[in-house]
Amino acid sequence: MSNETAETIGKVYLVGSGPGDPDLLTVKATRLLETADVVLHDKLPGPEILSLIPEHKREDVGKRAGGEWTPQEYTNNRLVTLALEGKTVVRLKGGDPFVFGRGGEEMEHLAANEIPFEVVPGITSAIAGPGVAGIPVTHRDHVSSVSFVTGHEDPTKDESAIDWQALADTGGTLVVLMGVGKLPLYTQALLDAGMSPETPVALVERATWPTMRTVTGTLSTIVSVRDEHEIEPPAITVIGDVAATRDRVLSFLENTSLPEDT
Amino acid sequence: MSNETAETIGKVYLVGSGPGDPDLLTVKATRLLETADVVLHDKLPGPEILSLIPEHKREDVGKRAGGEWTPQEYTNNRLVTLALEGKTVVRLKGGDPFVFGRGGEEMEHLAANEIPFEVVPGITSAIAGPGVAGIPVTHRDHVSSVSFVTGHEDPTKDESAIDWQALADTGGTLVVLMGVGKLPLYTQALLDAGMSPETPVALVERATWPTMRTVTGTLSTIVSVRDEHEIEPPAITVIGDVAATRDRVLSFLENTSLPEDT
Repeated sequence: MSNETAETIGKVYLVGSGPGDPDLLTVKATRLLETADVVLHDKLPGPEILSLIPEHKREDVGKRAGGEWTPQEYTNNRLVTLALEGKTVVRLKGGDPFVFGRGGEEMEHLAANEIPFEVVPGITSAIAGPGVAGIPVTHRDHVSSVSFVTGHEDPTKDESAIDWQALADTGGTLVVLMGVGKLPLYTQALLDAGMSPETPVALVERATWPTMRTVTGTLSTIVSVRDEHEIEPPAITVIGDVAATRDRVLSFLENTSLPEDT
Repeated sequence: MSNETAETIGKVYLVGSGPGDPDLLTVKATRLLETADVVLHDKLPGPEILSLIPEHKREDVGKRAGGEWTPQEYTNNRLVTLALEGKTVVRLKGGDPFVFGRGGEEMEHLAANEIPFEVVPGITSAIAGPGVAGIPVTHRDHVSSVSFVTGHEDPTKDESAIDWQALADTGGTLVVLMGVGKLPLYTQALLDAGMSPETPVALVERATWPTMRTVTGTLSTIVSVRDEHEIEPPAITVIGDVAATRDRVLSFLENTSLPEDT
């Protein structure tokens, strides 16, 4: 790469937006949203954060007209094209770019095309959602590990890619992302794996958004709880003793980002 | 609780500092460090972030004179005392308050003492450290889960509290926090559990600090790599195919927070 070329190449920042509350953006992400030439985003950062980005900088690479999703290949190529035009590009990802966010693929595509890039971590909703709801994903009294798993498996993969038996055997907290729809399947798999039906479970819907809701139950009741409260994606499922913490602390738990009654 | 009492009670914010780079503080954490009356901290947020806090607000509840650690009980009680004095208190934790940070215990102590509190998530070094080093903890091509485990087990617990066999069986990425010292023990445990000796492993030392270093090897070589480079705590261990990503992207990976040569 000659110096002449280098002078004209831009840079891509793979930036995590955090779970949705603009107050949980990092200082660096906030600055980059102001200074970038273009921000490629989908719907996952949430409406409050997207509304902070000037309209003329925004490129939506999420759902297209007609309801189809933009292929990952398009996003990958668009990042390269913009950088080659000399643009400073922010690829804004919900949560952290590398927690079930396909940021890994985008990073490898950039490197393969010799585009300079930088990773700017964000807060994952898988930890922050339970956290602001009064649920610590780890707790010294209960667990030595926490496992994060996607409930929305790549459909091209073999169904057995997630080993629920092994996850149950860890004895640690399990956090399922994008797991509203398949909740009946994996709660049953965990019961079959020997987990107690009394194991506490919480669902955190739209974590840290103004419309956030949290409901709790057990491994045997949570599907009914989901249906009764009509919990919908996006939501985080927390499975393990830590999920019971919320009820013990709720009376004194505040959240200045949320309405009083949530 | 009468209204009169409520007016005199302060509030405690359990705040995550992120991994150490002040640019990775959240907007909310930054504001709270400015507005709080008192900030209780230990060394984990790192020197750059601690230097941002005015001296007169700081209370170090980490190592005491003589090299002893402040008992958790002291910190718990101090939070309550300050809140009862009407203070706005920030309890600043390295990373996220609820990822192996004893934030759960502090939260429960506050609730038991009827102290209003709020949780302000932070970026965990367990995700951000690998991330800025070019290692995505999840990757669609490789894994459907990632498990976080502490390498510095509560010594009062039975040694078998961590089931390395189950963790190996998940087939997902394993991230060990505080796991420099016991690296030989758990790499051997994972080999015994059937993981391939060729499994890529990375150590990320002082994640996102100006002195950050990253070294890579395999499950069979990483102990020698650690010794050769004299890697010391704090460091994050990443075990799994994703750890090999770094070498594929390193030539184009930048980090504006770090010196050029890291």
